[in-house]
Amino acid sequence: MTEVAGRIEIYGQCEIVMANTTSLPTLQDVAAAAGVSTATVSRVINFPAQVAPATRAKVEATIAQLGYSPHFGARVMAARRTNTVGAIIPTMENAVFARGLQAFQDELSAHGYTMLVASTGYSAANEAEQVKALVARGADALLLIGHKRDQAIYDFLAAQGIPTIITWAFDPSSGRPSVGFDNAAAMRDMARQVIDMGHRQLALISAETASNDRAMERYLGIQAAMQDKGLPEENLLFIETSYGIEEGAIAFKQAMSASNPPSAVFCGNDVLAVGALRQARDSGIHVPDDVSIIGFDDIELAQVAYPPLTTVHVPHREMGRLAAAALIGWLKDGTPPNTVELLAYPVMRSTLAPKD
Amino acid sequence: MTEVAGRIEIYGQCEIVMANTTSLPTLQDVAAAAGVSTATVSRVINFPAQVAPATRAKVEATIAQLGYSPHFGARVMAARRTNTVGAIIPTMENAVFARGLQAFQDELSAHGYTMLVASTGYSAANEAEQVKALVARGADALLLIGHKRDQAIYDFLAAQGIPTIITWAFDPSSGRPSVGFDNAAAMRDMARQVIDMGHRQLALISAETASNDRAMERYLGIQAAMQDKGLPEENLLFIETSYGIEEGAIAFKQAMSASNPPSAVFCGNDVLAVGALRQARDSGIHVPDDVSIIGFDDIELAQVAYPPLTTVHVPHREMGRLAAAALIGWLKDGTPPNTVELLAYPVMRSTLAPKD
Repeated sequence: MTEVAGRIEIYGQCEIVMANTTSLPTLQDVAAAAGVSTATVSRVINFPAQVAPATRAKVEATIAQLGYSPHFGARVMAARRTNTVGAIIPTMENAVFARGLQAFQDELSAHGYTMLVASTGYSAANEAEQVKALVARGADALLLIGHKRDQAIYDFLAAQGIPTIITWAFDPSSGRPSVGFDNAAAMRDMARQVIDMGHRQLALISAETASNDRAMERYLGIQAAMQDKGLPEENLLFIETSYGIEEGAIAFKQAMSASNPPSAVFCGNDVLAVGALRQARDSGIHVPDDVSIIGFDDIELAQVAYPPLTTVHVPHREMGRLAAAALIGWLKDGTPPNTVELLAYPVMRSTLAPKD
Repeated sequence: MTEVAGRIEIYGQCEIVMANTTSLPTLQDVAAAAGVSTATVSRVINFPAQVAPATRAKVEATIAQLGYSPHFGARVMAARRTNTVGAIIPTMENAVFARGLQAFQDELSAHGYTMLVASTGYSAANEAEQVKALVARGADALLLIGHKRDQAIYDFLAAQGIPTIITWAFDPSSGRPSVGFDNAAAMRDMARQVIDMGHRQLALISAETASNDRAMERYLGIQAAMQDKGLPEENLLFIETSYGIEEGAIAFKQAMSASNPPSAVFCGNDVLAVGALRQARDSGIHVPDDVSIIGFDDIELAQVAYPPLTTVHVPHREMGRLAAAALIGWLKDGTPPNTVELLAYPVMRSTLAPKD
């Protein structure tokens, strides 16, 4: 037990997520509030065309107002599960989430669950819709990436009683069950090594930090290392861009044309780093003799890039497998799982060299 | 119009898929066959715990026997859609399907549909289950990869009236709406160029062909080019392996240690090719001076590999976008779309050179 932000939390119990499940609205609640029979409510849900428009509108408004979910209703009444688990990820491209998700699915599959995936294109609005769509389609549980999203989504999931596990991040103060890693600490560890190698002018090509807590934490990790090592803040050139190889190439070009160009370029992920690497080759800049490039993720791109990319290894498969195991246990015995921290760590390959 | 296998087919109309929709069982049919009221059938579906076990078993058996789907029943009765479209792909790893799928989703999303994805791990049994799971979760329509699967799956989808589009393949004789490309012709075009460059000893590192029609067609494409150019069949070393960078590396090593090693190594996809490329580097074999390596797919791996990979470009984004447009139109007006053939073509980069 520990006190966080003035509130007592029990590590790994995370009762917050399940807090509202005892007061879930029932079919009966909807019928009473709308002044109709339960059969009418049921008909609105299952065969809306059979219901008079005015009645239907009234019932639908009541359903929305109370936050009633027919699927959850069915589950409560019949302990009926769909054996479907949803996963909502920012993107399917570039395999950043693919490997972890495949492991997540393999573990679910071994326990008789089907995984359904939706991808948001890094849009918070899309994510909110997909959460609702997956719950409406009967997902028993959800996997989400990172902690940062509208509180209303967490409230909705709590009200619907949908076990939800956060991955790709670690924040015990959130009180939410998660299987992830500390993005800030991992990037800080890498940045310390880079600074210890003599690099003083740094750049970070980052994914957009506004709605992406992983990107923000990686940025904070570099800042922390600079502070530790006595480097002034202004020695970091910070470039935010959207996610892609082409974008990484463009940002690298921009970084290298700064009045004080960096000797080491951190990238918020391997995809950006591989773009930077390609641009360096196209510009006749030698890596790592002229400039060092550092990635984050350790997806396969990092290993097949040339030179092979120095990056931060994320334990994708382990994270996926453990996240599945956590949800399966939660669904089985109703107890939220402990929060699990996995280690992400620097992997030295061939794109980082000491600054001469 | 053309006659295929003794049966008249109308190109691009593909009425076969929708053929059984007129005889779909209704809720009433189930009730009559089980000798219960429609309310009881509805209760079995929605609140099974409220129904006596014997009655429930009888109704469930009747539902299974008639192939009744509550979701489709609801749709027929109420023209009620869930605005969810399912996509079932062999794997999420390595981004082979990711880019096309992202474009598929973007187009769906612009029209108010949510995409849910399931991945089979190249298992036919998984695919069959996932088809059922997605239909049960209310998918309005499905995207599938390739034509080859148990006829029972097509029968099930036809009985449920689920518009289904085939992608990543082109076979107008199938009578199924598809948006894809001719795998055999694309690989044949590439192989002709390779042979014209003087290569006589060839190898193909292929994904498993038994349940993967795309892999099989790529193999047939090379054989066709060899026949055109008068190369005997035994000049092709055929190695089948499962899908991965590591597997590509191992297979390449095996190919190069043959008594008559190839001067050009085709790979069934870019992932295997990148593995071969890595193995060549590790073995001190120079590409393309010592041996040429050719991929298939043109995913980003191909462009960031070093040397950049000569490969067959697949129009991923266009295929995804057009597949979505085809399904959206089909859902809107009930008419199956025309089958669309896109062009996949050789892209010359730096891993193929003339045989001296």
